[in-house]
Amino acid sequence: MTHTHEAGALHATAGVRAPSWLAPPDDVNTLVPKLWSQGVVRTAAGELEVAGVGVTELAEQFGTPLFVVDELDVRERARDFARAFASFEIFYASKAFCSAAVIRWVAEEGLSIDVCSAGELAVALKAGVPPERIGLHGNNKTEFELRQAIDLGLRRVVVDSFDEIARLRALTADRAPTRPLPVMVRATAGVEAHTHEYIATAHEDQKFGLSISEGETARAAQELAAIPALDLRGIHSHIGSQIFDTSGFEVAARRVLAEHAAVSRALGTVLPEVDLGGGFGIAYTTQDEPSSPQELADGLIAIVDAECHALGIDVPHLSIEPGRAIVGPAAFTLYTVGTVKPVVVSREASRLYVSVDGGMSDNIRTALYNAEYSACLAGRASQAPPRLSRVVGKHCESGDIVVMDEFLPSDVHPGDLLAVPGTGAYCRSMASNYNQAPRPAVAAVNDGDARLIMRRETVDDLLALDLG
Amino acid sequence: MTHTHEAGALHATAGVRAPSWLAPPDDVNTLVPKLWSQGVVRTAAGELEVAGVGVTELAEQFGTPLFVVDELDVRERARDFARAFASFEIFYASKAFCSAAVIRWVAEEGLSIDVCSAGELAVALKAGVPPERIGLHGNNKTEFELRQAIDLGLRRVVVDSFDEIARLRALTADRAPTRPLPVMVRATAGVEAHTHEYIATAHEDQKFGLSISEGETARAAQELAAIPALDLRGIHSHIGSQIFDTSGFEVAARRVLAEHAAVSRALGTVLPEVDLGGGFGIAYTTQDEPSSPQELADGLIAIVDAECHALGIDVPHLSIEPGRAIVGPAAFTLYTVGTVKPVVVSREASRLYVSVDGGMSDNIRTALYNAEYSACLAGRASQAPPRLSRVVGKHCESGDIVVMDEFLPSDVHPGDLLAVPGTGAYCRSMASNYNQAPRPAVAAVNDGDARLIMRRETVDDLLALDLG
Repeated sequence: MTHTHEAGALHATAGVRAPSWLAPPDDVNTLVPKLWSQGVVRTAAGELEVAGVGVTELAEQFGTPLFVVDELDVRERARDFARAFASFEIFYASKAFCSAAVIRWVAEEGLSIDVCSAGELAVALKAGVPPERIGLHGNNKTEFELRQAIDLGLRRVVVDSFDEIARLRALTADRAPTRPLPVMVRATAGVEAHTHEYIATAHEDQKFGLSISEGETARAAQELAAIPALDLRGIHSHIGSQIFDTSGFEVAARRVLAEHAAVSRALGTVLPEVDLGGGFGIAYTTQDEPSSPQELADGLIAIVDAECHALGIDVPHLSIEPGRAIVGPAAFTLYTVGTVKPVVVSREASRLYVSVDGGMSDNIRTALYNAEYSACLAGRASQAPPRLSRVVGKHCESGDIVVMDEFLPSDVHPGDLLAVPGTGAYCRSMASNYNQAPRPAVAAVNDGDARLIMRRETVDDLLALDLG
Repeated sequence: MTHTHEAGALHATAGVRAPSWLAPPDDVNTLVPKLWSQGVVRTAAGELEVAGVGVTELAEQFGTPLFVVDELDVRERARDFARAFASFEIFYASKAFCSAAVIRWVAEEGLSIDVCSAGELAVALKAGVPPERIGLHGNNKTEFELRQAIDLGLRRVVVDSFDEIARLRALTADRAPTRPLPVMVRATAGVEAHTHEYIATAHEDQKFGLSISEGETARAAQELAAIPALDLRGIHSHIGSQIFDTSGFEVAARRVLAEHAAVSRALGTVLPEVDLGGGFGIAYTTQDEPSSPQELADGLIAIVDAECHALGIDVPHLSIEPGRAIVGPAAFTLYTVGTVKPVVVSREASRLYVSVDGGMSDNIRTALYNAEYSACLAGRASQAPPRLSRVVGKHCESGDIVVMDEFLPSDVHPGDLLAVPGTGAYCRSMASNYNQAPRPAVAAVNDGDARLIMRRETVDDLLALDLG
């Protein structure tokens, strides 16, 4: 597929064919468990229900589009990571879904919180997370953000550039080194991984981190170790996103741990920590088979143990930063269908365009990354035969696609509720007001009880910024 | 280039080379006029100034990132369209930049306003535009939006589906046909155009419109003509975006005007209007050479005249819908540089990563469409040699790129002001709060005077939606 244009891709479509991984389902009402939070079932009456609350009731109470988060599912995913990675510190990457309630849940399950900005920090503090359990990331932290990290005594700052080191030096110049700020160096190891692929090179062409192979990591470590008010904890690396197995971590861990050992030797002290980053994938469609937290833990621990053994060093205290893997599958988006249009796309074929009351403003990932999602009829079951459909939004742009390809019952009609699972990560957090669309509310459901954790925006909210 | 991943494209980079169209400038301080609004100059002291106000003063007064709109430039672009298309009705596509001030300016210059949602309508009404100068678009208009169109007496509704026709029929059933609502049929002509290319097929695989070739346009027209409270005005077509010449309009106009004539014959009345849509392009970089409004008008009028002559019909009343072409070049984004990092990307080459205090939250177009932009040092001139650079944001994602390739003076450093021109369209209107980034303010400058037309969001604004 070509890149999105504002008015659609400039290419002819020969016909309508489902992608090779997408088979027409035997029963279009069956839910594929890996795509949904554990609390979601289709009731005997045909309706989707989450943690005992039906979607029709949710739509009536809170309106659509609506993000629906299964609280227990978030908690259990956090617990699964905590159990599998028992010897690690686990930072929830709050950028995936940044709400005080979600942050509070995962903190209650024992996770620390990773933030990338003053705004995310504000939400973590609102959630009641103690500063000493919050880490700060970012390639371009402002002086204000760094000063907050110092003044609040955050768990750690992951340092990303020499400019940042200079800033930290200046900001801590007049500080007594009584309670030094823990820092790590974000290293680039030359490894980039997605799904089942990874590539390993000497260099990376991206904005984050300091290169191991160029000696920047070691130099940064030396500079940081020389600043009295800082406590250099170790090296941080992050290799990619939506990663399904640990193969990419092998080369990365080898390089990072070798650097950890070398920097420790050079500094004459053993750096206590190593962070292996996040990027653990989830299932968006039937074709996705991500590893479980336990499989990831087994894989990562084996890799680290082997490398440390080979290097003749002790295993450092390890940390990881899952975000999507905790909150992604725990939520779905509930839409109301507005128009249904069979569009003839060739002499032989037509495609069903199903327009919902949201779109690229609440899920930019389809247009931005060619991300694939699934969808199903949510308010009722249907005995109609499945029909290859495309779920689109209501925005004034033909690239406004929510689900590229899905089999929906052919009797889908205006007023139907439609659910798109796996939208917990990077949907609400990247939402826009394109076409002045107020952003959806977020409802949390737990044990038969539904409550809003983020309220719906209103047109008045939007107008409040407009000074006329 | 491959599609963006959340953590960067999975590919090795052989080295650093500027794209073929991007030459190192003789003088890195020279502004390329077509990229900037008319009020922007570099002063003798080296600073950028817009309509007599220096960017340093703007940054001090309003902070960065900041959208800076040149009011006179918006007005003159609107006037240029009004002059060139004197016999047309011109609808400003407010989705491009939806603020009450901008809408008021273009309305004062004689343009009508196109909105796609209740939210955009609210802004147009706030701007004081009379309903009879506002048109409503959209593939999935809600009942609420259609009722507003009827009750307010909008200039017209561009009807996009048979579901919408059913909704209009129901909503107007009990209405006396005294002041019927003007409607048009959005037709798909099988033509799609971008920049200098277009393709013409029998079918289109997209959500908008009703197919001419399948007879849907004619059927929709007949259904609409039979609804007493509606006044069918004619056919609407839109062929693409960022279009530089009128070649794509030739096939489209032929098909649309033939349909206009056929539908008129079938209905036994001459439909009075045809809309040719928008999509007129602007220059984002030196490689772009869009047509002027006069060239577009000359081209379109010649095409329509020839087709009408060939069909033996009178030329209908025409309308067009420019958005980007009016507001795009009239604004730039002012950023402050936070970190500068030379990144070694191969044995021979390094790339300068210049991080600014905004990013994909205020300009998603680079990541979303592979859009190209330019940038320059704004707060001062520099005699340093040009260096191939990449302007990136402060978001926690390696795809967070603002300007893919640009020559910046090699002495660019933290604290420098950087300006990215051509950001008036689809930047603020698609802005998000990713990483809890508050959205930038928008300052309008006119004749030495700067004032905010949209205030900066605050972290408190964001927290107000979070119910904890």
